[in-house]
Amino acid sequence: MAEQNLRGFISVADYDAGELLDLLARAQHLKRLHNMGESRQSLRGKTLAMYFEKPSLRTHVTFEAGMSQLGGHAILLRPEQVGIGTRETPRDVAKALSRWVHGIMARTFSHSLVEQLAREASIPVINGLTDFLHPCQAMADLQTMSEKKDPTQSTLAYLGDGNNVAQSLVLLAAVLGFRIQLATPASHTISPRVRQRAEELAEQSGAELHWTEDAQEAVKGADFVYTDTWTSMGQEEEAELRRKIFAPYQVNTGILEACPNAWVMHCMPAHRGEEITDEVLDGPRSLVYDQAENRLHAQKAILEYVMG
Amino acid sequence: MAEQNLRGFISVADYDAGELLDLLARAQHLKRLHNMGESRQSLRGKTLAMYFEKPSLRTHVTFEAGMSQLGGHAILLRPEQVGIGTRETPRDVAKALSRWVHGIMARTFSHSLVEQLAREASIPVINGLTDFLHPCQAMADLQTMSEKKDPTQSTLAYLGDGNNVAQSLVLLAAVLGFRIQLATPASHTISPRVRQRAEELAEQSGAELHWTEDAQEAVKGADFVYTDTWTSMGQEEEAELRRKIFAPYQVNTGILEACPNAWVMHCMPAHRGEEITDEVLDGPRSLVYDQAENRLHAQKAILEYVMG
Amino acid sequence: MAEQNLRGFISVADYDAGELLDLLARAQHLKRLHNMGESRQSLRGKTLAMYFEKPSLRTHVTFEAGMSQLGGHAILLRPEQVGIGTRETPRDVAKALSRWVHGIMARTFSHSLVEQLAREASIPVINGLTDFLHPCQAMADLQTMSEKKDPTQSTLAYLGDGNNVAQSLVLLAAVLGFRIQLATPASHTISPRVRQRAEELAEQSGAELHWTEDAQEAVKGADFVYTDTWTSMGQEEEAELRRKIFAPYQVNTGILEACPNAWVMHCMPAHRGEEITDEVLDGPRSLVYDQAENRLHAQKAILEYVMG
Repeated sequence: MAEQNLRGFISVADYDAGELLDLLARAQHLKRLHNMGESRQSLRGKTLAMYFEKPSLRTHVTFEAGMSQLGGHAILLRPEQVGIGTRETPRDVAKALSRWVHGIMARTFSHSLVEQLAREASIPVINGLTDFLHPCQAMADLQTMSEKKDPTQSTLAYLGDGNNVAQSLVLLAAVLGFRIQLATPASHTISPRVRQRAEELAEQSGAELHWTEDAQEAVKGADFVYTDTWTSMGQEEEAELRRKIFAPYQVNTGILEACPNAWVMHCMPAHRGEEITDEVLDGPRSLVYDQAENRLHAQKAILEYVMG
Repeated sequence: MAEQNLRGFISVADYDAGELLDLLARAQHLKRLHNMGESRQSLRGKTLAMYFEKPSLRTHVTFEAGMSQLGGHAILLRPEQVGIGTRETPRDVAKALSRWVHGIMARTFSHSLVEQLAREASIPVINGLTDFLHPCQAMADLQTMSEKKDPTQSTLAYLGDGNNVAQSLVLLAAVLGFRIQLATPASHTISPRVRQRAEELAEQSGAELHWTEDAQEAVKGADFVYTDTWTSMGQEEEAELRRKIFAPYQVNTGILEACPNAWVMHCMPAHRGEEITDEVLDGPRSLVYDQAENRLHAQKAILEYVMG
Repeated sequence: MAEQNLRGFISVADYDAGELLDLLARAQHLKRLHNMGESRQSLRGKTLAMYFEKPSLRTHVTFEAGMSQLGGHAILLRPEQVGIGTRETPRDVAKALSRWVHGIMARTFSHSLVEQLAREASIPVINGLTDFLHPCQAMADLQTMSEKKDPTQSTLAYLGDGNNVAQSLVLLAAVLGFRIQLATPASHTISPRVRQRAEELAEQSGAELHWTEDAQEAVKGADFVYTDTWTSMGQEEEAELRRKIFAPYQVNTGILEACPNAWVMHCMPAHRGEEITDEVLDGPRSLVYDQAENRLHAQKAILEYVMG
């Protein structure tokens, strides 16, 4: 756990359980303040550079609104404007931004680019989603779970693609010691590197990590059933094939009969009728808008923690 | 007049005369404060999402500067980033934004999209221009008229295309009870739905609505002569044909001889030499930059009214 | 020195030596305040419109962060949104912006467009780079030089393309009275107009302006050695030819042997291995990140001066 990663927020696995629970408590507090209409100026005069290689609604709005709610300001940078790798090296961009602003939030295709920015910058870098991890989403999900049940005593089922969201949830469970039941096709499961790291962490935390290809098996006893799109940005040409492979992992009323008290989660945007049905997404067990809402507060807690 | 429309600002016809005059008084007050250099923090901590399907200079700058002048913050969203209808449904976008920000300003091609956003959102939605209505422009125009003459005692002539601006002006006159003389070609007059609604409203307010195809007839007795581009965004391929149809409706020194004391209005951008001549646009009777200026203050009044 | 230019910041040559040194002192003060974490609200309630015809990282971030650090707000405008010359005339854009915001920062290809905006606007216009001048960069460079040596007692060598940056540095030397040794190929030297103006100013200030085609000659006795990209934005198709013409002007360890105590400057982004080697750019004599940092503070001083 390098000092440089601690300063930023690249992976939930860079933080220990105590730190993550502290972030959660801060996020809950910030949400309460916000709902009471109380103003907070903890990042007054601070500026965040937001760099997006991919289009984004929720990451953009939640970071920009979050900085504003804390008295600071966020600057939106688009790839054609910055030209990392074309106009300038990642090193030069990281060094220059470090002279002007107080933090960088980067959403990139490549995880190694975010890691490189974090290495070269002398200001904290927050991972706003890469092809490998989505730690801010995991923290918002933790907050959402906590609003229904003690998350450390929960069982989370994840069905579908072993993608960046799945990988961050597995690491979250491994650090905090809760049970995760992951059902993915063998061809699209999480990376061996994440699995190994999660198993190491689970030895310390007591987390139970259950891997299966069987969706029915995964949802048994679940308090929360989570899925995500089968076709992430950049994978559109494989969409047809993916729909076949992932069909057994759809979250619908049928599969939810095995866990009648479970809440349903999705980080959105959803492909309605693919990984999740309209009926479930819009139904009374769905927490999807709460998850969206908690992006705002979980990230404000992260911003205060690394930039405050 | 549904409660949901009252919370937002979709059409001037969702407000009654008292409310519109109250908005006008607020806009006048905000302009005075601004010109005295007084700071105002009425929307401190509040955030507005601005969604643009069409390029915009004045709507963008006036809403963003307006939020800033009231102590709040505006977030710019572009269509390729949000992906309404491609990445996400209008419903999901409206529900998610409602969790993060305090209001939505939307400039869309389709009026029904703004109506749908207003229905699905639990925060106020402001119509920043659709193919059907442009209520914020109408409020800025009302403020501009008020700086020259009591608008409720005025006669407004509108020449040219029966477009979104014309329709909002007709509804404004119908609610407030002033006289409007609308000259459009029969092929490009206002929609029957707007005309019917305006006539209903006029029965209550005493507004005189005069419809004609004859520009000369329309300008007679006018205090204000208004025109707008003949070719709105998205109609570029019909531009040639439109120039022929609308030629008799040009606002130039010739036609203005019939109303020697009238002021000239245009919501800009202008196609100089088409719907209006340079001489008139840049002449002493032109109020076009005042109209532009009042966008800022009229919209600040609307923002305070719906988000304050 | 027209009153209209004084209100804005189009060229360093619109200011006299006393004014430029005053701006420098303000920039140094603002940097100290910033580094002590002190908040400043000198532009509270003020708004800057930023218009970019070219992509930009450092101009965008430094102006937007700068406005935020002074309590104000910056609005980003892109050319396809504003449509100067297509949707609207420069005059109409300048007149409209003058009604809404307190200043304009424009980065345009054509210098005459910035001059036209400054003529038509009734608010200050800041030149954020044109094909002719880059005065904000020159002020940041002045501040960077001042951190090493009294700039008015310095010798600055510039090697390479006689571009907008070179021209602003020549004018800066001419106003302030320091020595500049400019080595450019005869085919790519500074414009006769700038040279003539600089020579007039030098007569008053006592500046020594030394013109040569020989890079070795230029670096002799230099306190600072400055270079810039050989291929500015928009010149990409001549890149091959330019690399041949400019090869003798590369800043590398060899040429720096003639001025062993000189600092190295570059306004970035750099084409590493072309106008400057990695070794020099990343070496201990390089001031490039300080120059970048000082963009922020030099421009805040300009913003306060023209908008405060």
